This record gives sequence, structure tokens and C-alpha cells, in this order.
Amino acid sequence: MNPRLTVITLGVTDLARSRRFYCDGLGWKASSSSDEHIVFIDVGGVVLGLYPRDLLAEDATLTPGSGFGGVTLAQNVGSKAEVDAALQAAVKAGATLLKPAADTFWGGYSGYFADPDGHPWEVAFNPFWKLDEAGRVVLPG
Amino acid sequence: MNPRLTVITLGVTDLARSRRFYCDGLGWKASSSSDEHIVFIDVGGVVLGLYPRDLLAEDATLTPGSGFGGVTLAQNVGSKAEVDAALQAAVKAGATLLKPAADTFWGGYSGYFADPDGHPWEVAFNPFWKLDEAGRVVLPG
Repeated sequence: MNPRLTVITLGVTDLARSRRFYCDGLGWKASSSSDEHIVFIDVGGVVLGLYPRDLLAEDATLTPGSGFGGVTLAQNVGSKAEVDAALQAAVKAGATLLKPAADTFWGGYSGYFADPDGHPWEVAFNPFWKLDEAGRVVLPG
Repeated sequence: MNPRLTVITLGVTDLARSRRFYCDGLGWKASSSSDEHIVFIDVGGVVLGLYPRDLLAEDATLTPGSGFGGVTLAQNVGSKAEVDAALQAAVKAGATLLKPAADTFWGGYSGYFADPDGHPWEVAFNPFWKLDEAGRVVLPG
């Protein structure tokens, strides 16, 4: 599995408030790939995502009260086959498979594993996002 | 405050186990700046840190049981003055100051703020780490 962390998503209770804080308050720019359901911000080659905490837990198949810390990490890769391979490598290394890879509602393909402390990692193929040669997500402006 | 996320630190309960998982298992390379107390891994221009969860909470002046999710985010900047300025900007934007900027035991200077959901951000100047022109941490190999 390549050493890549491409997206950090923060679970939030009020997306509008979080967008005001990060974008209006700190002056960070929401990518045009953001909408009323999710916000993506390029924070120097890694993507900061803001997403409702309950939906984030649900996406990772975690129960909000089960010790879910409210943050997910993600590695974006270039194909469905790479998603499968990375998840297999993680499980072989001792990770717990949280969610087998499957097509997603947003048109991509992803699955989740948990590291030894339960930190959830998504491995995702997003056909709408470009990756640069270093494997970083290039968000639209 | 510049849009930069330079380090994600995962709080872990057994650092040796986590190092085995990420480095031996996944094959990711621990930087030579790692030691028996902390592990740093370059994950594509952003740094993944592994650090005992209780000490991570303590560093951010958070109580482990207080809703701390076990993850901290950090923005590394180039000087003490930039730490002060970024923390001031965050508080002006509505962040809660968790820990005023101060000299640290590891020879740097840092402080913490919490975003509207309590996600802790450290703003740090580490005189031992180089930042590239994009503001990314360049870890030693």
C-alpha cells in the first residue's frame, strides 16, 4: 500500500457553521467540488473535508457513540483495482475491514479499514478527481 | 491564516504496535526524526504522526474522556511570530484557544485552538523541520 494520505474529513454538527469558520473566518477557499452536503478545501496538497458527523460515521459503518473520534482519513487511488489491492494489503497487515469496497452513491468506489486503534481509513477511487504524479488530489478551484 | 495542514497525529495506545502496523505491515517508512516516543511518516507531502493518545491529549490540554477524538491536526509555520499570528486569526474567526503559544519541551513553539466542533489544531514552529516553498514539511529520510 502506497504511503499516501489524501483527505482528512472532519465530522461536524453544523456544516454551515463550519464552512463559515474555515472559509469566511480563516479565509480558506472551498473548492467548487463542494456543495450543500460537503465541503472540500485544498490545504496544501492534502484535502480537508467537512461533513456531518453522523453521516461520516454512517459512511464508515461506525456507530457515533462507539468511540468514533469524528475524523476519517482517506487514501485516494487511481482505480477500483487499486482500492481492492490497498484494502487487502491493510487487512494482511492486521487492519480490521470496516466496509468492503463497493460502488458509492457519489459515483466512486471505496471501502474502509480501521488501524489497530480503530482510526478509520477510507481507500477510494473517485473518477471525478484528478491525482497528480505524486498521488495528491488536485481539487478544482 | 494560510490554508495549510501539515501534520495529522493519531493518538495510539501502543506505539510499538502502531509502528509495526504502519511501517512493517503497510511498508511505510518512518522518518529518521522518529524515536521511541513518536513516529513520523511522510504520506505524500503531509506528515502522519503516531503518538500515545494520553500524551497527545495532554499536549493539547484536553482530557482523554472529554470528547477528544484521538486525532490532532497541525499547521507548521516558519517562525514564532507566524504561530502567534495564526492563533490570533483563528480566535478572531471564532476558534477556542486551547493552549496559548509557548516554548515546547521539544525545542519548538506552539499553541492549540479548537474549531467549532472541538477538533484540535496545533500551530507550530519547529526549528528542526524544513518547510518547502509550498509550506509542506520536508521530513528527513
